[in-house]
Amino acid sequence: MNAFDELANNFSRLPGIGKKSAVRMVNWLLKQDSTYVQKFAQNLGHLQERIKPCSVCGTWTESDPCPICSNPLRDSAQICVVEQPQDVSTIEAYGEYKGKYHVLGGLLRPLEGIGPAQLSIQPLLNRIKEGIVTEIIIATNPTVEGDTTALYLNKMITELNMPQPPKVTRLATGIPVGGDLEYIDKRTLALSFRGRSTL
Amino acid sequence: MNAFDELANNFSRLPGIGKKSAVRMVNWLLKQDSTYVQKFAQNLGHLQERIKPCSVCGTWTESDPCPICSNPLRDSAQICVVEQPQDVSTIEAYGEYKGKYHVLGGLLRPLEGIGPAQLSIQPLLNRIKEGIVTEIIIATNPTVEGDTTALYLNKMITELNMPQPPKVTRLATGIPVGGDLEYIDKRTLALSFRGRSTL
Repeated sequence: MNAFDELANNFSRLPGIGKKSAVRMVNWLLKQDSTYVQKFAQNLGHLQERIKPCSVCGTWTESDPCPICSNPLRDSAQICVVEQPQDVSTIEAYGEYKGKYHVLGGLLRPLEGIGPAQLSIQPLLNRIKEGIVTEIIIATNPTVEGDTTALYLNKMITELNMPQPPKVTRLATGIPVGGDLEYIDKRTLALSFRGRSTL
Repeated sequence: MNAFDELANNFSRLPGIGKKSAVRMVNWLLKQDSTYVQKFAQNLGHLQERIKPCSVCGTWTESDPCPICSNPLRDSAQICVVEQPQDVSTIEAYGEYKGKYHVLGGLLRPLEGIGPAQLSIQPLLNRIKEGIVTEIIIATNPTVEGDTTALYLNKMITELNMPQPPKVTRLATGIPVGGDLEYIDKRTLALSFRGRSTL
């Protein structure tokens, strides 16, 4: 295979990129300043060696432990449990949460062979056993897998039988801001009724 | 800037890629096999040194002259003039054209400072002066710039005052196959009337 097609194939494997876009990108790159292309290639080549999972929470980081885990101003009594590293970025972008994180690295999917051993669940339980944590906020998506994983985590945390067990909470499910009742699915509606609050 | 954001910025400069898609790509790449990522980085880094414009026709190639220019089975009497190297790929993919090519490297855009000197026009005239070419097929897009460039090329070729000047033709403009008269613009309709053929 020639150099052009080889690079186009590399690009077409990226999420959301088809064959045509990949070809367009290579054609575009050929016309760009070589400084940019060289820097791009270097950054790509060094990516996986420069960014690794944090040994404490599992999010992507260049320094270990990550800046969030090692920040003394973040509240160590709260751990927000998320599915993937990018969920940490999403919550950080919102900027209101001041606790710490724990990345599971996926959700329970027994049919695909993903059980508790494939996820970072034992490390989470070990963090809880240290006795500092007072609240575990489960922020998995409100999907079948997200719900199952949340229930399983709650069970495992209860079974730790700690003298002062942490409170286990879950992000609210309901109608999104700007959403329309007419277009909301029944399950979201049912959950928004169940989670209703007094005005 | 950190390694993650730096690479995401590199990706977001690609055509059609926004900030969100770029972040998604970097997150995805972090989870991929390092062989693929390393090969991708190498291919990207070597791209501009491996692929250069053909010294004859100007299309991207790894060997100079390009496989089309150096193929004795291609008809040297026909030159198809295109705007960019990717137009060569498009016409090659259709597979019926057996002549050679010439890449202009753009279209005349006086307002943006792109005049005849910025395009590969003199090299085209030199190829014509060799006296082998009998037809120049102008395949620039049917836009204002494409039309202007086609007229300019025609004028320059006529001014060569060759004893047997090549015929200068242009790809037909008209209603695309599967198109609908109802949705066709007036100019395309006018040109499809002008270019009508007997059944």
